[in-house]
Amino acid sequence: MSLELEKLSLEEQFEQLIQTEDKLAIRDFLNDQNISDVAELINKYPEYEGQIIGNMSVHRAASVFKILDIAQQKDIIKVLPNSKTAELLNELPADDRTDFLEELPKSVIRDLIKLLDPEERKITLSLLGYPEDSVGRLMTPDYVYVYAYNTIEEVLATIRKFAKNSETVDVIYVINERGELVDDIRIRDVILALPEKKLEDVLDGRVVALNVNDDQEHASQVFKMNNRVALPVVDDYNILLGIVTIDDMLWVANEEFSEDIQKIGGTEALDEPYLDIPFFKLIQKRAGWLIVLFLSEMLTATAMAFFADEIAKAVVLSIFVPLIMSSGGNSGSQASTLIIQAMAVGDVTLRDWWRVMRREVLSGLTLGSILGVIGFFRIFIWHELMNHGVIDDLYGPHWMLIAFTVGFSLIGVVLWGTLSGSMLPIVLKRAGADPAVSSAPFVATLVDVTGLVIYFSVAFLFLKGILL
Amino acid sequence: MSLELEKLSLEEQFEQLIQTEDKLAIRDFLNDQNISDVAELINKYPEYEGQIIGNMSVHRAASVFKILDIAQQKDIIKVLPNSKTAELLNELPADDRTDFLEELPKSVIRDLIKLLDPEERKITLSLLGYPEDSVGRLMTPDYVYVYAYNTIEEVLATIRKFAKNSETVDVIYVINERGELVDDIRIRDVILALPEKKLEDVLDGRVVALNVNDDQEHASQVFKMNNRVALPVVDDYNILLGIVTIDDMLWVANEEFSEDIQKIGGTEALDEPYLDIPFFKLIQKRAGWLIVLFLSEMLTATAMAFFADEIAKAVVLSIFVPLIMSSGGNSGSQASTLIIQAMAVGDVTLRDWWRVMRREVLSGLTLGSILGVIGFFRIFIWHELMNHGVIDDLYGPHWMLIAFTVGFSLIGVVLWGTLSGSMLPIVLKRAGADPAVSSAPFVATLVDVTGLVIYFSVAFLFLKGILL
Repeated sequence: MSLELEKLSLEEQFEQLIQTEDKLAIRDFLNDQNISDVAELINKYPEYEGQIIGNMSVHRAASVFKILDIAQQKDIIKVLPNSKTAELLNELPADDRTDFLEELPKSVIRDLIKLLDPEERKITLSLLGYPEDSVGRLMTPDYVYVYAYNTIEEVLATIRKFAKNSETVDVIYVINERGELVDDIRIRDVILALPEKKLEDVLDGRVVALNVNDDQEHASQVFKMNNRVALPVVDDYNILLGIVTIDDMLWVANEEFSEDIQKIGGTEALDEPYLDIPFFKLIQKRAGWLIVLFLSEMLTATAMAFFADEIAKAVVLSIFVPLIMSSGGNSGSQASTLIIQAMAVGDVTLRDWWRVMRREVLSGLTLGSILGVIGFFRIFIWHELMNHGVIDDLYGPHWMLIAFTVGFSLIGVVLWGTLSGSMLPIVLKRAGADPAVSSAPFVATLVDVTGLVIYFSVAFLFLKGILL
Repeated sequence: MSLELEKLSLEEQFEQLIQTEDKLAIRDFLNDQNISDVAELINKYPEYEGQIIGNMSVHRAASVFKILDIAQQKDIIKVLPNSKTAELLNELPADDRTDFLEELPKSVIRDLIKLLDPEERKITLSLLGYPEDSVGRLMTPDYVYVYAYNTIEEVLATIRKFAKNSETVDVIYVINERGELVDDIRIRDVILALPEKKLEDVLDGRVVALNVNDDQEHASQVFKMNNRVALPVVDDYNILLGIVTIDDMLWVANEEFSEDIQKIGGTEALDEPYLDIPFFKLIQKRAGWLIVLFLSEMLTATAMAFFADEIAKAVVLSIFVPLIMSSGGNSGSQASTLIIQAMAVGDVTLRDWWRVMRREVLSGLTLGSILGVIGFFRIFIWHELMNHGVIDDLYGPHWMLIAFTVGFSLIGVVLWGTLSGSMLPIVLKRAGADPAVSSAPFVATLVDVTGLVIYFSVAFLFLKGILL
């Protein structure tokens, strides 16, 4: 409640100030706010985004800029005068700069890189050289390093000298003369140690490092398993290249999450917020999969055509086609998303395929039997209602055979759905593809055709010579 | 490659050591490893998990214990002697202890809490009192606080005194005599300031705090938007109660991600790793939704029965039922997961419903038209093939009317699927439910019945008096 009021007044204050065009007052006001509040003002008043960023001290402007959406960042760069853009880009931490630049068209990147100071330009070009989604793209070269032969006092002096320009001083890195990573030490341990002690006497020799070519998702797992707010990044020769900070991991997790969910829903990863992505790009991302699924699903029409004679003889069979098909699709969606999720968080690996298969065969049989029994009784109850004239008689004298057909088909279809849904992500991963591609719609489509074949085969078994 | 070799030898070393039963050597070996490596050893040799945890120094054992799976944690507590368990639980940071205890049955919690020292017991009981998924459950009371009138020298002395027992010293908290949060300051700014300066001259007056009742997901957003590795937690009166550290956010993000994906796949959130959850619990989590979907999907049988006469007259209509239905389901899955994801990361809020609706009507019409055209030509091509005797003639002389029926039905069904898929998560959120519940299977089921009605209505329009 009080928070709500505070926010209101913040916005009101801003509205009044921006009218006055008093640049100094606006600057003071903006510098007094939390960066998340300034980001919210930009969200609320996109028409003033250039003025807001342009009027803040460049250091704070950079802090705000880096937490904005890519769409907002692009807009701001468009309205900002070149001199301001240059200031802002030079001030931006190297990792956030890479993050922003990699979203832009090549020609724009070239223009913007020209605005950078020679030193920053060199860093940016080297970071952009690492593969997309690699740790290298998240890295910042702004860290504090010391040598093992330094005393604690010297370490503190180094920290004081370089802290201003480094991304974090929570962890200090120890290297040798060849630039190889030797250890890391937390600032708390530096502060706790006696000033005259040598650093090497305090080090514990335990250091966890990321490789510059590691996948960002892997980095996120390493952070989860190690109690560090920053991790050093080395090349294949253990040379310290930079550091990655834990706050970047929240963004990585967010992005992975979004991509996985979009893929599970049967869309290509959007890479842009839903409301910001241009309409035709949105259609493009969606139409591809939808068309592939549609073309595959045409096989159901072929299968149905194949059974057209049977349907003509026993129209009652067609009544249960949607029910049977959707049960296979639903159980397949369940199984595939369970396994995709378990693989994404590392609970299930390729080696576990046999354990997964055993579990899913049992699950499929159990779930299928439950639905089969319900389906059987649904037909039994309707039959009773028909018998008593409550509804039209559709099933005829062979209602029980139809009930058995539906019941046993459900067991088969659910078992098949569960099995293919759970194995597909594993097979995809084994083939080097992203398991999340085995989306709910994809599995459902795969299961639909087979589901029809199972259903009509069971129908033959029960109804051959009677209805068929 | 070299990493692989190192790991191999780590495991080999461990295997040799554990045979010797030389407790001191085992302890030294384990204390030398990174906690993530020890956690991996426990994964690899579950039979020694008790010995591994029991043989380490209690401080390091706690660090390893807190990154293990809940299933492993439970196993270890079962095999550890009571005295060791007491040591371990007392050493565990308060937030991780809460995290572990909340997963256990009430009776076990009671027994374990008895093992705690009076002070830790008090803390644990109060943390367990906060609602599940609230910031209170993640909080730790181990932080360093100082007063604004302290000098930098005094602040450093306080840090030295309390650093050992605090979760982080990266951020120091400033309170007043009433215990209210005044500001926070990063350790770098303390180190950079002159020792004789007063703290109040260094503070910037900008502090972002979490409320103890805030949702954990909200906390994760706040961390993303503010450059802090720890955030203070206050009650409604701004009294500082504890802090939350950013590493917990990686676990929160992971959990939210898993829950959302599982729900989208049409399963209840498992709350346990897939391979660890007991079989009957797994079935229970899956059967509920599957049965609800199955019962709803029975309406398709009712709808089909309603159109049984039409199917009997024109069996050809039944051939396209699966195709039409699945197209509605697929486009609905796409739309719902896109919106669930966009709402989860905050790109779309309730206020945006109208913008979403406008986009989705256009998307639905476009995507539906694409599929409609493809569907039309599919029938045209098959008709040509039938004409030339390549396949049996199923469509008859009215093939073009059938093609129009299928084409226009697809537009209608895809539009309806897209629209209901995108609006359902918004409606659910508005009603206070979790948008992720509008799973792909749920939307597909919803769309299936309506899809049938749309299809047969369009068929009436085109074929009334001709085939029907």
